[in-house]
Amino acid sequence: MAELKNLTKRGENYSQWYNELVVKADLAEQSAVRGCMVIKPYGYAIWEKMQRQLDDMFKETGHVNAYFPLLIPKSFLSKEAEHVEGFAKECAVVTHYRLKNSEFGGVTVDPAARLEEELIIRPTSETIIWNTYKNWIQSYRDLPILCNQWANVMRWEMRTRLFLRTAEFLWQEGHTAHATKEEAEAEAVKMLNVYSTFAEKYMAMPVIKGVKSESEKFAGAVNTYTIEALMQDGKALQSGTSHFLGQNFAKAFDVQFLDKENKLSYVWATSWGVSTRLMGALIMSHSDDNGLVLPPALAPIQVVIVPIYRGEEQLAQIDEKVAGIVSALKAKGISVKYDNADNKRPGFKFADYELKGVPVRLVMGGRDLENNTIEVMRRDTLEKETRTCDGIVEYVEQLLADIQNNIFEKARKFRDESIREVDTYEEFKKEIEKGGFIYAHWDGTAETEELIKEETKATIRCIPEDMDATPGVCMVTGKPSARRVLFARSY
Amino acid sequence: MAELKNLTKRGENYSQWYNELVVKADLAEQSAVRGCMVIKPYGYAIWEKMQRQLDDMFKETGHVNAYFPLLIPKSFLSKEAEHVEGFAKECAVVTHYRLKNSEFGGVTVDPAARLEEELIIRPTSETIIWNTYKNWIQSYRDLPILCNQWANVMRWEMRTRLFLRTAEFLWQEGHTAHATKEEAEAEAVKMLNVYSTFAEKYMAMPVIKGVKSESEKFAGAVNTYTIEALMQDGKALQSGTSHFLGQNFAKAFDVQFLDKENKLSYVWATSWGVSTRLMGALIMSHSDDNGLVLPPALAPIQVVIVPIYRGEEQLAQIDEKVAGIVSALKAKGISVKYDNADNKRPGFKFADYELKGVPVRLVMGGRDLENNTIEVMRRDTLEKETRTCDGIVEYVEQLLADIQNNIFEKARKFRDESIREVDTYEEFKKEIEKGGFIYAHWDGTAETEELIKEETKATIRCIPEDMDATPGVCMVTGKPSARRVLFARSY
Repeated sequence: MAELKNLTKRGENYSQWYNELVVKADLAEQSAVRGCMVIKPYGYAIWEKMQRQLDDMFKETGHVNAYFPLLIPKSFLSKEAEHVEGFAKECAVVTHYRLKNSEFGGVTVDPAARLEEELIIRPTSETIIWNTYKNWIQSYRDLPILCNQWANVMRWEMRTRLFLRTAEFLWQEGHTAHATKEEAEAEAVKMLNVYSTFAEKYMAMPVIKGVKSESEKFAGAVNTYTIEALMQDGKALQSGTSHFLGQNFAKAFDVQFLDKENKLSYVWATSWGVSTRLMGALIMSHSDDNGLVLPPALAPIQVVIVPIYRGEEQLAQIDEKVAGIVSALKAKGISVKYDNADNKRPGFKFADYELKGVPVRLVMGGRDLENNTIEVMRRDTLEKETRTCDGIVEYVEQLLADIQNNIFEKARKFRDESIREVDTYEEFKKEIEKGGFIYAHWDGTAETEELIKEETKATIRCIPEDMDATPGVCMVTGKPSARRVLFARSY
Repeated sequence: MAELKNLTKRGENYSQWYNELVVKADLAEQSAVRGCMVIKPYGYAIWEKMQRQLDDMFKETGHVNAYFPLLIPKSFLSKEAEHVEGFAKECAVVTHYRLKNSEFGGVTVDPAARLEEELIIRPTSETIIWNTYKNWIQSYRDLPILCNQWANVMRWEMRTRLFLRTAEFLWQEGHTAHATKEEAEAEAVKMLNVYSTFAEKYMAMPVIKGVKSESEKFAGAVNTYTIEALMQDGKALQSGTSHFLGQNFAKAFDVQFLDKENKLSYVWATSWGVSTRLMGALIMSHSDDNGLVLPPALAPIQVVIVPIYRGEEQLAQIDEKVAGIVSALKAKGISVKYDNADNKRPGFKFADYELKGVPVRLVMGGRDLENNTIEVMRRDTLEKETRTCDGIVEYVEQLLADIQNNIFEKARKFRDESIREVDTYEEFKKEIEKGGFIYAHWDGTAETEELIKEETKATIRCIPEDMDATPGVCMVTGKPSARRVLFARSY
C-alpha cells in the first residue's frame, strides 16, 4: 500500500506517472550503464508473450529466424548514403579487443590491441545482412529470402526513457529479398498488417496504418509504412515500421540475381521491426492511477486468487476449495496464481496485483466458503461482485475475453474522439495543444513540414491508408494539397 | 549430389569434415566480421528447438527470464580478482559513441565522443548482474533470486571455429542468489542435472558429470560442475557448466542481506550456462560421411516425403495419397515436409535431406501407388524398407523414437568403450594418442596438471561424480592421489 500511495497520478504528471509505474510494477529499471535498461522478470515475461505471439505470426507468413553478427565494420555503414546519414551519429564504436593490467591498479585498454578497422554495434542490420545475402543469392531460384532475427541493437541516445528510448533495446528485424518490386512492396504491406493485427488483437491497442512522409521515413528506405498509436496523454507513439527498401541496399552491396530470362537484376528488399518500445506503448495505452492494466492476452498472470482466513484450519479448507478452481482454469489454458503466502496482508496483496495489472482477482473468505461463493474483481473497471462458485471457471474465461475487448474499445473510443479535422494553421496551433491526432492539409514540402514541427512540435505521423484522401489547400502556405495527413506530437 | 561428393570423409580429415558440413548443411557460415558467425535459418531452427526445451526445463525448476545490459563498465571487471584475470584479455572495448563524416570520404570515429569510462561487451554477466542484485536484495525475504537470460556474449578469440569457438556466441546464463551455502550448492548441482538430462534425452549425447579441477574452473567460481561429452574423433567437448560462486561476487559488489535473526550476511551465488557450442557438440556426436544425423527430438524436419512420378496426373494421385499421411503425422505433433517441388531431381533431394540429417524419409512412386506401399528410410542407419501404407503413421512415430534411442546408445557405446584406466605415465602418453577418456591417478597439484597438458595436450576434463573414487598414486610423480580423474584432449 505504501508503494501505491506513492504512485503519481496521471493527471498530475503523466511523464512521472509512467516513469514510476515502470519501476514500481517491476517491469524495468535503469542500469549502471547510461541509457541501458535492466528488464526485470515481470516485464520480461510480458515481452516473452509478445515475442511468442509475433514469432508465431511471422512463421505463419512463411518467415524463418536466423542470426547475424552484433558487430558491423564501420565501412559498411557508408555504403548506403542515406543510411549512414541516419545512424552514424548514434553508433557505439568498438576500437580495441583486449584489456591489460594497469600500473595504477585495475585494468586499462591495451593500446597494442587496436582494431585495424573499427566495428560498430549494430543500430540495425541492413548492411551486414545485405553483405551476407550477396553470397546467398545467385539466381531467381534463391528468392525470396524471408529471414527474421530477434536481437539486441544499440543507438546512442542522449535523453533516454525506460522502454521508450534506450541506448540498447531488444527487437526483431525482418529482412527479405525478392525478385520483383511488386513482391517486395506486397511483403512490406503484409508485415505492416501483421503488426497492426498484433497491436489490436493482442495488445488491445488501436493503430492507424499509413505511410511516412519523406522526412520521417527510415534512412535508406523508399517507403516506410507505420502503425501509429495514441497514448492517454494525447501523444502519438510509432509502434512498428515496415520498409520497402527498393534496390537501395542491393545496389550498395552489389547483390544481383539471374532472372528467368538469364538477365542480371538487382534484388528488391524490405525490412521491418518492432521493439521493446511496444512495452511502453502497452503501459501508456491502458494503465491507470492504480497501476498497470494489462490485456489478458499478454498478462503473465491472468487470474490471481487470494484467500482471507482466520487460522490454519480455515486456510486448509479454502486451499482445498480453490485447488479445484485452479486446476479447472489451468485446463482451459488460463494462467492462474493462488497466493496463499502468509507473509503479506490481503490488502497489500490486492494493491500489488492491481499495480501489476493482473486482469482478474478472485478472493475467497470464510463466509464465501460457507456460501459456496467467491468475490470477482476485474482490473480494467475495478468492479467487484460476489458470485456462486458454480460455473465460475466459465465465467472467468468469458470475463477475460470481455476485458480484452473492453480495454480495446475504450482505447479506440479515446483515439477516435481525438482525431479532428482542422483547416487553418491558427486552429491547428490551438488544437495541437490539446493533444490527439489532427487531420490537416499540407503542401507536401519538407520546408512546411519542418516549419510546423519547429513552431508546434507536431510531426506528420503518417499519410493514413483508411482515411479521407480528398485534395485541398495547405493550412500553412495555401498551396495545393494532395490530401490531408495525420499530425500529432509524439514520443 | 555434387555437393555431397565434395564432403570430406571423417576418416580422411575430421576437422575439415566438420567445417565443410556446417557450411554445406546450411547451419552457419563465417561473416565479414572476424570470428563472428552467421547462423543460417536451418541451423537456427535447431538452436530454437534447443532453446525452447531448455527454457521449459528452467521454468519447471522455478526460474524466470530477465535481461541485463550488453555493455559493462570496465571497472566492474576488476572487482573480482580471478574474474578479471580470466576475461580481461578477450574483451571487445567500446571507447566512442559517435561517428562523423570523414574529410577523406566515408565515416570516422568522432574523437569528441570519447567515453569517460570505456565499456566492454559482456563476456559473461556476473559483474553487471551482481551490481544490479545489490539493489534487489535487502532481506532474506528477497531470496532466492532465480534469473536466467538468453543473450549474445563476446570473447575475442584468435582462432575461431563455427559454433565451437567464435568471438560472438549465443547462450543462456542463469544467475541465482541464495541465503545459504547449502541452497546455492544444491542449485548448482540441480542445474548440472538439467543440462545432463537435456544432453542425453534431447541431444542423444551421453555426458559425464563431474567437477573441474582448480586450474580448469570458471574465473571467480569456488567450484565448477561440468558435463563432458566425447566427439567421434576421440576428443572431449565441455558441453555445459554450472558454477557454485560462493560469496565471491556478493563480496566484490557488497551484496548483503538481513537474515531471519536480523544479522547481515553476504549472499551465496551460482551461475550456469550452455551456448551455441552445443550445436557443434550435436553435429560431432552423430553425423556421418553423408552429412548430419539429427536426433528426432531436435530435428526441424522430422519426416520428409518425396514423390517419384511420371507426369502431372500421377503426381496429383500421389499428392492426394500423401496428403492423408501428412495430416495424420502432423496430428501426432510430428513435423513433416512434403517436397513435391519440380525444380530438383529425386536423387538430388535424397542427398540434400541426408546432408541435412532429416531422421526419416518416405518415398512414394507409381508402383507404391498401385500397391498401397511406401518406401521408408531411416537416416541413422540408412536402412530402407518398403511397407504398406496401412499403419504407416504409427510405424513412423515408433521409428522416430527408435532412432532417438539408437543414436544415443551408439554414442554411449562409443564413449564407454573409449574410457580406459591407465596406471603409468608411459602408458598414458601412448593411450592419449588414440583419443577417448583416460582415467588415471594424479597428485592433485596444478604443476603436475600443467606438465601433463604441456607434454600430452591432455587436460583434466573433470573429477567424475559416478566413477570409482579409490585412492592410489599419481601416474607422474608417484605421490598420493585421492582418486582417479578423467583426462582427454579436448575442443
